[in-house]
Amino acid sequence: MGLMTAEEHKQSLRDDRVVYLRGERVEDVTTDPLLRICVDTAGIDYEMAHMPEYRDLAVVSHPETGEPISRYYYTPQNVDDLLKRHELMVTGTRFGMGVVPFTHDIGADAMNAVSIAANTMGKKEYLERAEGYRDYLQKKDLSVAVAMSDVKGDRVLHPSSSKQAHPDYYVRVVDRDDKGIVVRGAKAHITASAYFNEVFVAPCRVMAEEDADYAVAFAIPANTKGMKHICHPLKAEWGPLDFPVDLPVRAHTDCLVIFDDVLVPWDRVFLCGEWTHVMTLVYSFATLHRHTASSYRIAMTELLVGMAQAMAEYNGIEWVGHVRDKITDLVMYLDTLKSLSRASCLDYVMHGGIPIPNPAICNIAKYNFAANYHDCARAIQDIAGGLLITAPTYKDYQNPETRGDIEKYLGGKAGIPTEHRLRMMQLIRRWVGMELEVSALHAEGSLQAQRMMIYGESMAKIQEYKKRAEVLAGIRREGES
Amino acid sequence: MGLMTAEEHKQSLRDDRVVYLRGERVEDVTTDPLLRICVDTAGIDYEMAHMPEYRDLAVVSHPETGEPISRYYYTPQNVDDLLKRHELMVTGTRFGMGVVPFTHDIGADAMNAVSIAANTMGKKEYLERAEGYRDYLQKKDLSVAVAMSDVKGDRVLHPSSSKQAHPDYYVRVVDRDDKGIVVRGAKAHITASAYFNEVFVAPCRVMAEEDADYAVAFAIPANTKGMKHICHPLKAEWGPLDFPVDLPVRAHTDCLVIFDDVLVPWDRVFLCGEWTHVMTLVYSFATLHRHTASSYRIAMTELLVGMAQAMAEYNGIEWVGHVRDKITDLVMYLDTLKSLSRASCLDYVMHGGIPIPNPAICNIAKYNFAANYHDCARAIQDIAGGLLITAPTYKDYQNPETRGDIEKYLGGKAGIPTEHRLRMMQLIRRWVGMELEVSALHAEGSLQAQRMMIYGESMAKIQEYKKRAEVLAGIRREGES
Amino acid sequence: MGLMTAEEHKQSLRDDRVVYLRGERVEDVTTDPLLRICVDTAGIDYEMAHMPEYRDLAVVSHPETGEPISRYYYTPQNVDDLLKRHELMVTGTRFGMGVVPFTHDIGADAMNAVSIAANTMGKKEYLERAEGYRDYLQKKDLSVAVAMSDVKGDRVLHPSSSKQAHPDYYVRVVDRDDKGIVVRGAKAHITASAYFNEVFVAPCRVMAEEDADYAVAFAIPANTKGMKHICHPLKAEWGPLDFPVDLPVRAHTDCLVIFDDVLVPWDRVFLCGEWTHVMTLVYSFATLHRHTASSYRIAMTELLVGMAQAMAEYNGIEWVGHVRDKITDLVMYLDTLKSLSRASCLDYVMHGGIPIPNPAICNIAKYNFAANYHDCARAIQDIAGGLLITAPTYKDYQNPETRGDIEKYLGGKAGIPTEHRLRMMQLIRRWVGMELEVSALHAEGSLQAQRMMIYGESMAKIQEYKKRAEVLAGIRREGES
Amino acid sequence: MGLMTAEEHKQSLRDDRVVYLRGERVEDVTTDPLLRICVDTAGIDYEMAHMPEYRDLAVVSHPETGEPISRYYYTPQNVDDLLKRHELMVTGTRFGMGVVPFTHDIGADAMNAVSIAANTMGKKEYLERAEGYRDYLQKKDLSVAVAMSDVKGDRVLHPSSSKQAHPDYYVRVVDRDDKGIVVRGAKAHITASAYFNEVFVAPCRVMAEEDADYAVAFAIPANTKGMKHICHPLKAEWGPLDFPVDLPVRAHTDCLVIFDDVLVPWDRVFLCGEWTHVMTLVYSFATLHRHTASSYRIAMTELLVGMAQAMAEYNGIEWVGHVRDKITDLVMYLDTLKSLSRASCLDYVMHGGIPIPNPAICNIAKYNFAANYHDCARAIQDIAGGLLITAPTYKDYQNPETRGDIEKYLGGKAGIPTEHRLRMMQLIRRWVGMELEVSALHAEGSLQAQRMMIYGESMAKIQEYKKRAEVLAGIRREGES
Repeated sequence: MGLMTAEEHKQSLRDDRVVYLRGERVEDVTTDPLLRICVDTAGIDYEMAHMPEYRDLAVVSHPETGEPISRYYYTPQNVDDLLKRHELMVTGTRFGMGVVPFTHDIGADAMNAVSIAANTMGKKEYLERAEGYRDYLQKKDLSVAVAMSDVKGDRVLHPSSSKQAHPDYYVRVVDRDDKGIVVRGAKAHITASAYFNEVFVAPCRVMAEEDADYAVAFAIPANTKGMKHICHPLKAEWGPLDFPVDLPVRAHTDCLVIFDDVLVPWDRVFLCGEWTHVMTLVYSFATLHRHTASSYRIAMTELLVGMAQAMAEYNGIEWVGHVRDKITDLVMYLDTLKSLSRASCLDYVMHGGIPIPNPAICNIAKYNFAANYHDCARAIQDIAGGLLITAPTYKDYQNPETRGDIEKYLGGKAGIPTEHRLRMMQLIRRWVGMELEVSALHAEGSLQAQRMMIYGESMAKIQEYKKRAEVLAGIRREGES
Repeated sequence: MGLMTAEEHKQSLRDDRVVYLRGERVEDVTTDPLLRICVDTAGIDYEMAHMPEYRDLAVVSHPETGEPISRYYYTPQNVDDLLKRHELMVTGTRFGMGVVPFTHDIGADAMNAVSIAANTMGKKEYLERAEGYRDYLQKKDLSVAVAMSDVKGDRVLHPSSSKQAHPDYYVRVVDRDDKGIVVRGAKAHITASAYFNEVFVAPCRVMAEEDADYAVAFAIPANTKGMKHICHPLKAEWGPLDFPVDLPVRAHTDCLVIFDDVLVPWDRVFLCGEWTHVMTLVYSFATLHRHTASSYRIAMTELLVGMAQAMAEYNGIEWVGHVRDKITDLVMYLDTLKSLSRASCLDYVMHGGIPIPNPAICNIAKYNFAANYHDCARAIQDIAGGLLITAPTYKDYQNPETRGDIEKYLGGKAGIPTEHRLRMMQLIRRWVGMELEVSALHAEGSLQAQRMMIYGESMAKIQEYKKRAEVLAGIRREGES
Repeated sequence: MGLMTAEEHKQSLRDDRVVYLRGERVEDVTTDPLLRICVDTAGIDYEMAHMPEYRDLAVVSHPETGEPISRYYYTPQNVDDLLKRHELMVTGTRFGMGVVPFTHDIGADAMNAVSIAANTMGKKEYLERAEGYRDYLQKKDLSVAVAMSDVKGDRVLHPSSSKQAHPDYYVRVVDRDDKGIVVRGAKAHITASAYFNEVFVAPCRVMAEEDADYAVAFAIPANTKGMKHICHPLKAEWGPLDFPVDLPVRAHTDCLVIFDDVLVPWDRVFLCGEWTHVMTLVYSFATLHRHTASSYRIAMTELLVGMAQAMAEYNGIEWVGHVRDKITDLVMYLDTLKSLSRASCLDYVMHGGIPIPNPAICNIAKYNFAANYHDCARAIQDIAGGLLITAPTYKDYQNPETRGDIEKYLGGKAGIPTEHRLRMMQLIRRWVGMELEVSALHAEGSLQAQRMMIYGESMAKIQEYKKRAEVLAGIRREGES
Repeated sequence: MGLMTAEEHKQSLRDDRVVYLRGERVEDVTTDPLLRICVDTAGIDYEMAHMPEYRDLAVVSHPETGEPISRYYYTPQNVDDLLKRHELMVTGTRFGMGVVPFTHDIGADAMNAVSIAANTMGKKEYLERAEGYRDYLQKKDLSVAVAMSDVKGDRVLHPSSSKQAHPDYYVRVVDRDDKGIVVRGAKAHITASAYFNEVFVAPCRVMAEEDADYAVAFAIPANTKGMKHICHPLKAEWGPLDFPVDLPVRAHTDCLVIFDDVLVPWDRVFLCGEWTHVMTLVYSFATLHRHTASSYRIAMTELLVGMAQAMAEYNGIEWVGHVRDKITDLVMYLDTLKSLSRASCLDYVMHGGIPIPNPAICNIAKYNFAANYHDCARAIQDIAGGLLITAPTYKDYQNPETRGDIEKYLGGKAGIPTEHRLRMMQLIRRWVGMELEVSALHAEGSLQAQRMMIYGESMAKIQEYKKRAEVLAGIRREGES
């Protein structure tokens, strides 16, 4: 009971859940060489709650019982609560070295969306279930994954359309009795379901009346009978060619989750046929979770800015005009994200009795991040240079036949060890080192090299155009030199 | 007969046409203080044909009669013809100081589109009329305006839709007899119809079967009974506050053209009910005319590049990094337009037996120009500075009480006379001096001033992010300085 | 004493100040047909303070005397004060129909910057003068213009460089005695100095030791002997061709201000030779005033969004995909500005004992507005269509010979009077109707028209590329159809 | 002698060259499991010359001997030759399934640059050596890599600067005698040197007089004593998790090339101390090679357009507005590249007696490709959706416990096999599947999802702004509904 430790969380995952990875059944997610990285990443959220320097941020007292509970599972009341929660997510992601813990945040978003929908519907049973589920999460301190994206089939068609190849492209109720409902379908891109306690399931689009069977939301343990998690293999391990780093790797992975006639007890059913209320649930969750995203992306973007500046300094070009411009652009990108995320708390709105960050501004924050991310990656690739891709490996660096050459020739600015430069290249490569992008930028000469030639090669013509403008301004006559 | 002179063209416009400007009937377009500017602008195309240095470009021999005819009215046969025509348009617009003569080019585009449509339809009467009209234009060397854009009413509705407020939002045939057809409707944004000889009229969108009455194309003299030209007042005159420039003002203006039951004789009817062929005519004209646009915009853009460079030099900032970047961007904008326009000739396609510039590439050329024009204006405004708007007038410059202060204080780079700087500002103001845009850029400090502060104010944080990246790369440990 | 009325402010400007406009001396700025528009615009700030609905926002009690004073002249203490001031500027600009009153805000920015600089320097005389000036403004409720931008000469050179054509390109101290200092120079782009009570003068760049004479800041009445205001003629009047609107025109104008050996008494001198402190003063003012800008631009941008939506509805295209996209972009532009401006209050910093909005975020807010304004203008021009430029005038609309045609043919969506459409076009034309920009967009067909043709004309090739991709994916074999 | 076959080329690489890969010495590049992919890729250029359908394009007759030689090694004379060469590169890259053969093209660019420099210098020995090298390449039909990019050290410093950590950051002459010169240094990012016959070496920047020892250009066999190639490990192999494709993998890789006091015989020295001529050589090569790049990138980009369209169709969204917009943007990106590349041939200039594609336009072509590549990647990622990253592997697809679910649930548009969709995802993932970019776009909902919410959530405010605009236009009064 009460706040879990990271170790307790790990133990709780040994529950015979059905997980596949690289085409094989995983016996124990906590010992699998890839998935245990994810389990450890999830664990940092539990660690923080027990660390004195984070406790005030991560833990609050239950308003009635006074028991310590995760701040995530506490219902916010005002601007300060929203800003504190925002700060917790940023801080947690910094602690996760740029990777969001995810353990409680998305589940809290879902839980709050369920409360808003229940308050809006006003039906007693839903209000009680929402309250019950919140109580359960507060007491057990469980990790919760959220399964929203249906596999959809033909995206243009409604879930119940007879033109769909089969009726199961969206999760739906196929049966119901005293105990609960039976659901079937599949959800894609579900982060962490394979190594979290609970899975919260909700629709991903608005529904029409004929889609009532698809208007279903619920929560169940991740090892419930009939559930299957097919994981996407993460590329998180440091390989033998990599410079070894004495820090844990942090990463999550996603699953395709199959619901093969899964029984959900009534007290975990939060929507079942009320198709007109799907929109409230979907929009509330989307807003809350985009605010979560706009918060955790801050800590990740801070690291990208840091990599750009480090690389600029190691390359000795931090004072060059276009490099400063790029760093300034990165800072604007980061601070605009921060400001939008924080302003959305300031200008919150009340939905179903709960203050939520301003929906328009949350969405703008997330949009701004997503629409400009590629420019951010490009700026860093541009600053790093082609060595981002072509740098020799750690094994070349270790080989006595080549090490001397590498040490000698791959030095950058005097005073920066060659190894530091190669290590920073390696870090950036893992984050933004898309080979074809780097080659598009740097093969056959950098963008700046081309700009320089375009300017130089065109100057004679530019002067000719200038003379014509001077004639037109009455400054010189045609042909006058 | 044969090539007209500019004076002959002017005389030909005294034909009792019905023209309104500033709410009043214009008696004679060649003497009206505003419209005579347009008449003179149209005249330069005739002047060129008589100038030895342009004659080879502007005039060709009729392939059968050997008579000199305008190159515009000659049917192109190959890449060289297309490139020569392109060069003629660029040269003519340079001669027009950045304003396209327009006199023959758009009419030629229409004439060629008519030929293509006739060849595609293959009907004898249309082939003869197309041939006859071309012959007429070649012999008479007339100026031709083209009226495409219908006023449309509700744009979502078809021309014949009963939901339109009335059936005349698109030009249509309301009657027909032995002599010809009677048409009714209005066309908007029609450049030069008030001061050109002929008006060519064609649909501006594809049609459905029920729109057959709207599938009509024809050509008539601009003074035909029932036509009314309501002109948009041009702002072309130099005013008393302007530094006087000893060059003619060049400009065109547009009209709303009303067709109040106008009779069109059969030999000038090029489409009448053949709704399936509207698309051929519309697309051919659009392609040809966008190529024309992608050609004449070159000469106009050259002047913009010239203004930017002149202003940069007068302000003494032509070596500043971001200024060179902006000049380079302008050159890329210009040369991309040129290259697309020329490559479209190289990769021409045959339509209805006539080589036309590659339709996809023509459209890309025009799109590229139009979509990026505002960035071009912004760059020049940025280089010019706030004085673009706030510079004193010529009258202040003449007033002995203020002239000394202006001479003394508004000098820029040593060696550049203050008056030159003010004259170049005036020229640029007329071309791209939108007050709110300039104020958006320069009020409260320039873009660069803000970038500088953002960079400086953020450096402490940037260094903090850098340290975190170094920890992650295995270069330093947490807290290590 | 105490809060002025608009009428009292107007009276206070009849003080024999030396003002030029259109090359002539203006006898009385309150009766000049152009400048009185500006005087009335300035007056709205005084009006607000007397209107019950705005009083709480516009007026605060003096913390010591309890007297009502303008909120602008009150020293902010915390986040709430910063947000209230922000709200006052937005509200005042809404009341000014998109034009900032300007009357107290920029002066307050200067006054606060002076306090910060005095606090940082810590010299008693400066502290007293700063306090004295604040007290004076609070009591007299005066309007204050700020003169920052020197005319600069060659911008690459320092103020004191011997390469400058003369030493007066930056305002400097040429003499000093018991009474005060004597200053000489000129300032450009000075909004409202011709019709405000006071002019605050400060340097516009950082200084080196040899520039000490240029390190001077002071405030004087706008009619001080030796000052000359050469105004830039505003184009604010509705002309005879315009649809008459029964609302006052709101506008400001700028001046070139000459300081011809002007005496400044010591108690109004805030900096005199302390070149190392110029940066504090300049940066503080720049930050504060960019926050002011990021606030008032909100109300202006709201109107632009409103125009876009109105025009989309009048044209009947508000549901078209690319139009909705453009409206959404405009909303993001507006709300990003708002959010940055508000977040800068939330994350304020203390400078010289005064809380000021976060400098990095203020600058990002202003940058974001300025760098993207042209895109905003382009979107509105695109939605409005070519009629934005080519629409007939009010006189054509009144002329019985053309009115019927205009009424009939220029209707848009059913139910919207033609006059409404023309009036909205007129409003937009005044704000963003740059002729060459609109023609770049709409002449020869809109951007969408070109996109449509590019897509259609390229489909055959696209399908060919698709087949090659399918071969590469192992889906089909080469040549297989 | 004469044209080599791919097999002969392969044999010629068994020459004891010193190559490292993954930290180990490679005995035979033609049998190494990774490098043999590169060798085969290089071979396709030889294959083409022997295929009837390509022979006319790939092979020309020697102007004097009449012997068949590679078109690459022939000196172009006019527009047609430049366009044919352009076509050969596009065609070769299509044949290489999007990967440029590289075998002769970059070497030809270097050879032509050497001729231009020799012609400009006008020294007899250089003219003879240039001629001799061209003759050698024509006869032997060798593959040539080009080593330009020095490792540079501190990029702000000149090669000979005493502040550089050592004098060897740029390749330089350390000794010379009767036989030739001895060179030392390293070149980075050198494509294909490990598996081509010859390496051509030239400076990468302009030089000052004190850098004369660094002004050196030469060509040598890749197995010359003292040369070491440290390869960057390519990720070209299909792995066990990948759907198997029955096509050869095509790829190149890069090397860090070490010159450890390498002897170059005089007849292969093309520049040795003539520092004023470095610029001619560097600029000529840069221009020629950027034209090569602007040609081969066309075939690569065609495939990207094909992938986008295939994926759009498989997802059933090819008719959605924003998807069509993205496809149109991709086509414009591609056709602008094509047009610039072709127009640069049309507007060629003569350098040192050889026609070369227009330098400004070549550079614009390459810049345009490079600066916008990330937008192109983003568009494809956006169309593909999150499954691009999260799709199950081939092993999951083969596992009978999960195959049924995958087949059932990952179908898209009816009629498209699930396997086809997964294969296309796999292909796109290899080309543009940067995980963090895809997650930036798709995690927490797509860009479109956010735009939709921003628009919807803001509509009430938009209507309010609209009303204010209507008041300002004189259409309604304040407060009127």
